[in-house]
Amino acid sequence: MKKVYLDNVSTTRLTVEVRQAMLPYFDENFGNPSCVHEWGDIAKEGIESARNQVAQLIGGTAEEIIFTGSGTESNNFAIKGLALAHQKKGKHIIISAIEHFSVLHSAKTLGKWGFDVSLVPVDKYGLVDPEDVRRRIRKDTILVSIMHANSEVGTIEPIEHISQITKESEVILHTDAIATAGTIPVNVQKLGVDALSLASNQFYGPKGAGALWLRQGVRINPLIDGGVQEDGRRAGTENVPAIIGSGKAAELAYDSMTTRIEHLVNLRDRLLSEIPSTIDHVVITGHPKHRLPGNASFCIEFIEGEAMLMLLNSKGIAITSGSACTSRALKASHVLIAMSIPHAIAQGSLLFGFGIDNSSEDVDYVLEVLPPIVEKLRQMSPLYSKFLKRGK
Amino acid sequence: MKKVYLDNVSTTRLTVEVRQAMLPYFDENFGNPSCVHEWGDIAKEGIESARNQVAQLIGGTAEEIIFTGSGTESNNFAIKGLALAHQKKGKHIIISAIEHFSVLHSAKTLGKWGFDVSLVPVDKYGLVDPEDVRRRIRKDTILVSIMHANSEVGTIEPIEHISQITKESEVILHTDAIATAGTIPVNVQKLGVDALSLASNQFYGPKGAGALWLRQGVRINPLIDGGVQEDGRRAGTENVPAIIGSGKAAELAYDSMTTRIEHLVNLRDRLLSEIPSTIDHVVITGHPKHRLPGNASFCIEFIEGEAMLMLLNSKGIAITSGSACTSRALKASHVLIAMSIPHAIAQGSLLFGFGIDNSSEDVDYVLEVLPPIVEKLRQMSPLYSKFLKRGK
Repeated sequence: MKKVYLDNVSTTRLTVEVRQAMLPYFDENFGNPSCVHEWGDIAKEGIESARNQVAQLIGGTAEEIIFTGSGTESNNFAIKGLALAHQKKGKHIIISAIEHFSVLHSAKTLGKWGFDVSLVPVDKYGLVDPEDVRRRIRKDTILVSIMHANSEVGTIEPIEHISQITKESEVILHTDAIATAGTIPVNVQKLGVDALSLASNQFYGPKGAGALWLRQGVRINPLIDGGVQEDGRRAGTENVPAIIGSGKAAELAYDSMTTRIEHLVNLRDRLLSEIPSTIDHVVITGHPKHRLPGNASFCIEFIEGEAMLMLLNSKGIAITSGSACTSRALKASHVLIAMSIPHAIAQGSLLFGFGIDNSSEDVDYVLEVLPPIVEKLRQMSPLYSKFLKRGK
Repeated sequence: MKKVYLDNVSTTRLTVEVRQAMLPYFDENFGNPSCVHEWGDIAKEGIESARNQVAQLIGGTAEEIIFTGSGTESNNFAIKGLALAHQKKGKHIIISAIEHFSVLHSAKTLGKWGFDVSLVPVDKYGLVDPEDVRRRIRKDTILVSIMHANSEVGTIEPIEHISQITKESEVILHTDAIATAGTIPVNVQKLGVDALSLASNQFYGPKGAGALWLRQGVRINPLIDGGVQEDGRRAGTENVPAIIGSGKAAELAYDSMTTRIEHLVNLRDRLLSEIPSTIDHVVITGHPKHRLPGNASFCIEFIEGEAMLMLLNSKGIAITSGSACTSRALKASHVLIAMSIPHAIAQGSLLFGFGIDNSSEDVDYVLEVLPPIVEKLRQMSPLYSKFLKRGK
């Protein structure tokens, strides 16, 4: 059976070059970077080189990169660490309604710790209005966190405008750039943010390797206390091979970004333009223009997304219906709900995430396989037969 | 030049079998375990199998294993997560004075959050007296955390006795078993603990893979919020290859524990018995009997440990003078100070950590190389010449 992986939103496949870069660090270069001997020095040099590579990807400096164990850890570290470090100034933070659960639930935890959290809404495309951020800033606001792009619907947020507002108010701005760093050009100076989260498994690097970029001079409390690794800001023996891999992946992403984007946009645009002509009642989600290059998300009415996932999987196609971190939880996406997409439609959401390994033949295969699946499921759908009766 | 790695306390080298088990998960099995498709299912099956392997190593059940990104993260998770989840009962916790910084500093953070922390002292061998724990338990005590063994001096603590006391008082007992799990027999039922931290890079598994075993029914707050991974207790895309590797390493450690221990004890005992006859003024640290099999730690008077490290390194020998997490910080060990070893002696501490790859020839080499280094350094030591003058 043909196998088509179109779930590059959940995780990407390691490129051969990245794996090759990592392998020596599982073998002869296995030392602990904290140790003052040859084995330690080799590991230390490796991670410092990776730090430079990751810094270059986002236009920061190496000293501003703090390696973590995942994008989720980076977000927890940013939200909790920044809030706790600046709570003397105030205890109010602002996030958007469509943040990833690692931001939303970190903010919820802060709520339990006596912080006040305001949610900024989004429009039907999932866009945050910077003026909505401005309206929520108070004297005791210490932190705003708005994601750079939402991986579920692909919408890219106007961080550059939002940062003008947070700068005027002297409020720290964090952005979850897990969906963008390594995929589209990300420059921390241009964005004007103070902190930025990224994860290397989103750009063909390994799992277990996230990073938080933190502007020099911004104070933060560690999430993980202990030794003096990462300048005392994130304790624990560094996951050296994963860090090496994230550095190499960052370098490759930086060097080949334009061609990668072009490739992804072609595949995405073809699918998004042809799907509505092969399937009725399709609602394309996310912004038509400000959109991640590989993201083709839409809802198919009168069908459960999960059922489509299963049948696509039986045909060798892997996609998701939303965030990987909630897939096995089977709930309607809070992102689509925040975009005012009716619950019934939101339940039929599908997310095709293209990656650099995908080809035009993969789109052909989806266009061949999906319509009969939709047809089959609709025949079994009470909602659809009700709709048809009403139509008559 | 001969190369002898004797810093297995800081980290161990991945065995070939472990690396082989991991490699497919960097390649075709690259999926995200949270995803409901074939790639996700393969990854999910892999980590569930590893969960069983790790559970078997410590006599727990698979459902009780929570994978983390490091031993340090496990300790942070246990200390902060258990304290926060049980703070309604009280805000007092008890730890020993020789805990790893990941426990000590987590407790310090709890102190800032309004918790009260009591330290239990140790004797000159680094042993905790269980009665000292009993004396510190109060009505509002919710958590005791005593390490299973101290990696710096090798002393194994009487956790079985301590757990009898915490059980009587209905206080949760956590043990940092990072130095013992995978090295000596560890059984959570026999130890009687409620939570136990481990890290696979301590037993020839990968970095980036720790675990917390948590007895079924014991509540804990997540350290890392977000998705529903690890039963909602530790969010973030699982580091699948590292988890696979930790499972394989656990299986190998379980199967070959007796032969590994015998091998390490032979090397350790030979070094510890011959060093005092080749070098004057040596103070062996840690317990003579209740001791980690690979741990040979001692202080050499009148010399700075760091200087010895450098010169040994120049001869191809890698060791440490204390915890890897503080090596680059160059401070006298809080463990040795807590054992009432005078500061001047503690500064000359050396830690030889034997591993399964070491041989009797490695001990020969140390016994050949170390005495002239000590001699050389003592000739330059003002303290030593003072001592010699006093002696005359």
